[in-house]
Amino acid sequence: MPTPESCSSKQMNRSLTILGCGSAIPTVKNNPSGQILQLGEKLFLIDCGEGVQITLRRMMLHTSRLYSVFISHLHGDHCFGLLGLISTWSMMNRTQDLHIYAHKDLERLMRPLLDYHCSDCPFQIIFHPIDPRKRDVIFRDRTVQVTTIPLRHSVPTCGFLFEEIQKEPHIVKEKIEQYNIPFSAIPAIKAGGDWVTLDGHTVPNSELTLSPEKPFRYAYCSDTGYKPAIVPQIQGVDVLFHESTYLNEHADAARRFQHSTAEQAAKIAAKAGVGKLIIGHFSARVTDLSLFLTEAKAVFPNVELAEDRKVFDFS
Amino acid sequence: MPTPESCSSKQMNRSLTILGCGSAIPTVKNNPSGQILQLGEKLFLIDCGEGVQITLRRMMLHTSRLYSVFISHLHGDHCFGLLGLISTWSMMNRTQDLHIYAHKDLERLMRPLLDYHCSDCPFQIIFHPIDPRKRDVIFRDRTVQVTTIPLRHSVPTCGFLFEEIQKEPHIVKEKIEQYNIPFSAIPAIKAGGDWVTLDGHTVPNSELTLSPEKPFRYAYCSDTGYKPAIVPQIQGVDVLFHESTYLNEHADAARRFQHSTAEQAAKIAAKAGVGKLIIGHFSARVTDLSLFLTEAKAVFPNVELAEDRKVFDFS
Repeated sequence: MPTPESCSSKQMNRSLTILGCGSAIPTVKNNPSGQILQLGEKLFLIDCGEGVQITLRRMMLHTSRLYSVFISHLHGDHCFGLLGLISTWSMMNRTQDLHIYAHKDLERLMRPLLDYHCSDCPFQIIFHPIDPRKRDVIFRDRTVQVTTIPLRHSVPTCGFLFEEIQKEPHIVKEKIEQYNIPFSAIPAIKAGGDWVTLDGHTVPNSELTLSPEKPFRYAYCSDTGYKPAIVPQIQGVDVLFHESTYLNEHADAARRFQHSTAEQAAKIAAKAGVGKLIIGHFSARVTDLSLFLTEAKAVFPNVELAEDRKVFDFS
Repeated sequence: MPTPESCSSKQMNRSLTILGCGSAIPTVKNNPSGQILQLGEKLFLIDCGEGVQITLRRMMLHTSRLYSVFISHLHGDHCFGLLGLISTWSMMNRTQDLHIYAHKDLERLMRPLLDYHCSDCPFQIIFHPIDPRKRDVIFRDRTVQVTTIPLRHSVPTCGFLFEEIQKEPHIVKEKIEQYNIPFSAIPAIKAGGDWVTLDGHTVPNSELTLSPEKPFRYAYCSDTGYKPAIVPQIQGVDVLFHESTYLNEHADAARRFQHSTAEQAAKIAAKAGVGKLIIGHFSARVTDLSLFLTEAKAVFPNVELAEDRKVFDFS
């Protein structure tokens, strides 16, 4: 039985793998929600509908660097796959702890099941209750920060803004040698300081450093009715995933069930000036998915359809 | 959104549809356990691992005549798909009640989830607790009877023996006319009685009736270690599904985890003199499934491999 190894898509520094882009009812093409965001060496699982573990196996994806799961809300199509995934990891002797960020009810509902079905689980499962109504930093490590994006849905729901932490500037080696700058002075220069030579000459910071790469930002917004209030928070993100459950012809249903149309998703993308829009969470009632693309493109040109098992490479 | 309709395989009077024939860990090919037995107009769901509802949708199978689910045991690969299936049926406005036959713990575990996720479920869900250690008739209607088959596994587990109820003999119309037999006498003849004419001549029952079709019998045995004690109960069934998690080379694992090898499944089939053997519940560690077939065929020739989405027609 193979033990999980690092993600097979090692070459890609930043990527998004769609595990499921359907909505509540699975279709011939699309499973319920689930996706893996890769940022550097880390994998983040966002939502976990039924079938996520099956798609992971079908795609031969390895998940030893997947430590954190983010659940947007507790509708079944966003969380029913979690128990099976944990159960399988348990049987495969995963050892890494698993952190689950979700509405507090998830732990209350899942603990009895985990105690029953995964009593000999060899890793810790740590639930982090989140309040989807508030904008909160819920995760931060050395390289990534995750903030909730309060959304508008029939149950408490939030999206997630993933932001790489701004790296320090790169030091220009040649300048360090040229000015005989000691190692002990580097942190101050990385922090923005100039260098004053022994003869009193000031070398500006801009000569000593190169700007670091711009941090990558990814926003996940599903499920939600049209909510322009999120625009300031996701302004200028590199990639926005926005739900697009319906077409304009189903605008009434979108309002009633607090979902968005493709056009509304594109409007949010346009207002926020994002780099790329990916739409998904397609209703089972629409079989020709290109209609979503056509509607969205009319408002925002750089848009792509999510598709089960599709990998978007952002490197 | 389509409402469920009658099973699409209407032409087939008796069939078995494999929804998942893998074991605990899903593989590139096989989902966890699940199958639908069709007997006449009725559908019976046997086990419901993760992904069952997805496969039902992929196969475009309709389930309005599926009233009963039989869960062999509470390992996740046999029951984790139930919540999603019920949730989807609830959203699709299913109205038929659903009867679930399973170990009593299933209701205790599932009720809080059903209350939370399916609070507005438009149909009744009735749990029927079964004791997998005993041989019991747990279901009987006008046409079908289901009996538990106690198995040998690491948690309380039973198989299920589905038996069509013996139909009454057919009356030979011409003879009824020939002997002027009144309508009121028919029930007694159907029950085996002869007919005595007015002039005292006895017409034997065999002249008045034709034997009804032999009732079809199907036995489902998963998961289990090798258990010849089940043979008398399944003697002569038309079709036996027997788990075959391992090959002979993994006989130690089979013993340790209380599963069977293909050869052991075939031995049970041979001892019980069944019509056909179907093997499934294949371990993820075996990728060439034809090896299971070869091992089983050496002991019992009429054997077939289960395969996800395969339909066996027994009409």
